[in-house]
Amino acid sequence: MEFNYFMPTRVIMGGDCVVKNRALLGELGKKALVVSGKNSARINGSYDDVAKALAANGQTHVLFDRVMSNPTVDCACDAAELIRREGCDFVIGIGGGSPMDAAKAAAALALAAVDRAAVHGASYTRALPLVEIPTTAGTGSEVTQYAILTSQSGDLKKSIGSPVLFPRYAFLDPRYMRRLGRETTVNTAIDALSHSIEGMLTPRSSEMSNALARESIAIIAGLFDELVHMKKDDAGRAAASAAALSPEVREKLLLASTLAGMVIAQTGTALVHAMGYELTLEWATDHGRANGLLLGAFLKFVDERERAAGIPPRIPAICAALGAAGNSMTLDEFSRLLDKLLGVREKASCEQIEAWAQKSAATKNAKDAYISVQKSDIIRLFEQSLG
Amino acid sequence: MEFNYFMPTRVIMGGDCVVKNRALLGELGKKALVVSGKNSARINGSYDDVAKALAANGQTHVLFDRVMSNPTVDCACDAAELIRREGCDFVIGIGGGSPMDAAKAAAALALAAVDRAAVHGASYTRALPLVEIPTTAGTGSEVTQYAILTSQSGDLKKSIGSPVLFPRYAFLDPRYMRRLGRETTVNTAIDALSHSIEGMLTPRSSEMSNALARESIAIIAGLFDELVHMKKDDAGRAAASAAALSPEVREKLLLASTLAGMVIAQTGTALVHAMGYELTLEWATDHGRANGLLLGAFLKFVDERERAAGIPPRIPAICAALGAAGNSMTLDEFSRLLDKLLGVREKASCEQIEAWAQKSAATKNAKDAYISVQKSDIIRLFEQSLG
Repeated sequence: MEFNYFMPTRVIMGGDCVVKNRALLGELGKKALVVSGKNSARINGSYDDVAKALAANGQTHVLFDRVMSNPTVDCACDAAELIRREGCDFVIGIGGGSPMDAAKAAAALALAAVDRAAVHGASYTRALPLVEIPTTAGTGSEVTQYAILTSQSGDLKKSIGSPVLFPRYAFLDPRYMRRLGRETTVNTAIDALSHSIEGMLTPRSSEMSNALARESIAIIAGLFDELVHMKKDDAGRAAASAAALSPEVREKLLLASTLAGMVIAQTGTALVHAMGYELTLEWATDHGRANGLLLGAFLKFVDERERAAGIPPRIPAICAALGAAGNSMTLDEFSRLLDKLLGVREKASCEQIEAWAQKSAATKNAKDAYISVQKSDIIRLFEQSLG
Repeated sequence: MEFNYFMPTRVIMGGDCVVKNRALLGELGKKALVVSGKNSARINGSYDDVAKALAANGQTHVLFDRVMSNPTVDCACDAAELIRREGCDFVIGIGGGSPMDAAKAAAALALAAVDRAAVHGASYTRALPLVEIPTTAGTGSEVTQYAILTSQSGDLKKSIGSPVLFPRYAFLDPRYMRRLGRETTVNTAIDALSHSIEGMLTPRSSEMSNALARESIAIIAGLFDELVHMKKDDAGRAAASAAALSPEVREKLLLASTLAGMVIAQTGTALVHAMGYELTLEWATDHGRANGLLLGAFLKFVDERERAAGIPPRIPAICAALGAAGNSMTLDEFSRLLDKLLGVREKASCEQIEAWAQKSAATKNAKDAYISVQKSDIIRLFEQSLG
């Protein structure tokens, strides 16, 4: 057994935790850059809480609310420039993975003399104090040392990573998720699930990371029924009242996604994420959905390979965690469940698949796999998932 | 759900991990104080590894090998004085909980102007960089912010605690445990188990700490047979060869004890620890054994109280984690198992119990309980355990 476990972020969960713990923010400096997307941080109350906490501390802030889905290198560099121009002492990211990752990258870029073209290759040894406040329950970015940025050319999603990117604080307030619609709720839950499952299928997985992963998987598995039966309203959003998830379910989803973040902070992700990025780059498929589309086929592939190679199998522990009351879930059952959550699948052409497989096969996640993966395998996985 | 999770120590596990990761030590300064007990760090190879790693880095060290079982305030202050006199830059603790706790306290005391009489009451805001290397699998001190010190008068075991006491690094090398005898192995395993179980029964337990606790309990429960059947040699130690535990079992026990440490870093301990300290102070009962003697009766007491109060019960989750293959272990089964592990129990007089109960009832752990505990309850628990 060998592992190297590190997750130094202080994680604070609870309703109103930002305002209740504003004294912690008070120690970080005089002026904050608050990083968010266009609207959601205002709608769900998280921005108001942050503004209230900072004002009560006598701290000022500047808002950078221009983070798009799948933030670009330029976006992060713009935020970093704003930090320097305004003399901000610390950074607060509010949102799903996109604003949180942009905030993280900006906190490092503000202290690094890195050319925009070199952001992905650079190494980061310092960052401004960073606070992350998730408003979805999926990314886990609030407890990782990674920020995923899309290249300027728009054809590459890739992470920058450094221990200095671990946030100082992660504030988990499930109230910010109460009005999330079915689509976002399901997609982000699948993202979290995929983090934990993939984390168990990497060369860096360990008994330590697996312990966290099993817990995270089991929590989400216990909520599959809730997710499947969550109602859509006309706009594809959850009806606000009875159809919405209970606060307890929101809490559990948030805990599970944070646990899953702690997993990938140790292990990184696996082939599903590398492949899923291609769907997102080309089709703008939501990140969690992209993972979900690929996850079922991937698990069956790993299962076959493990059996053929006669190596200690990892799939059974995943099936056990997915099951209830001591009964494992089969991979077929899990695939059917994903189908229910995802609905009608996108279709890809042979040309698309060929091009995606070419790129996916060249990624670290593909080369790094504990079972060998060829381009032909990746083609087959895309075909099974999107054929 | 509310919690505040923090455990910033980097945990590195694996055979030869100290030497392999010596570069990490290299960043901590020029001169180390190495803190250990009299002999064991030399016998199990841990001191040699540390000396080799430091020498290879061109670092010097001073050895403070005078830590007794249940280290006193004086011991920690003496180590702190040595740090100051020798100009040490960082501290490495090697051993069971006693040397690790003494090292931890010394790292803070070296930077604090605290009178020996005020060590327990002081607050600590700085500490020298600290590395902990456990040589038993029980205390979890390598991942906590606590150091337990016995008062100068010898009648009080009490912790000092501060976030600055979290070690920078914990190196977990299960090879240091391979020659531990049955008694130490069993007692330390019980200590770890008690940490996780008590951690689930405090006001500060949360879904997050419980997730770690369940994993830790399940790992140890999976090794109950190995522990029960571990052979003694004539000196009460494990026979060196076939009778000893396998490296895999040693690894698992170490992982479980570190997970349990991560639990109590969040929750603290409960009444069992507070009561157990009395046995250790008066009889020099090994710390883990003291907890084991009290744990069975305590769980039955909590179970009764939970039922009577009609509060959400916590005992079932503990029994589930103790059980195998989806079957819970009953509290009676667990008590019988503890009996097998502990052998003949010590007997206490009514006067002793009265005095101990008086002191235990005044502790934070007793007052802090999520179920109310009276002195009369504590008397009954001592009687049931040692009557």
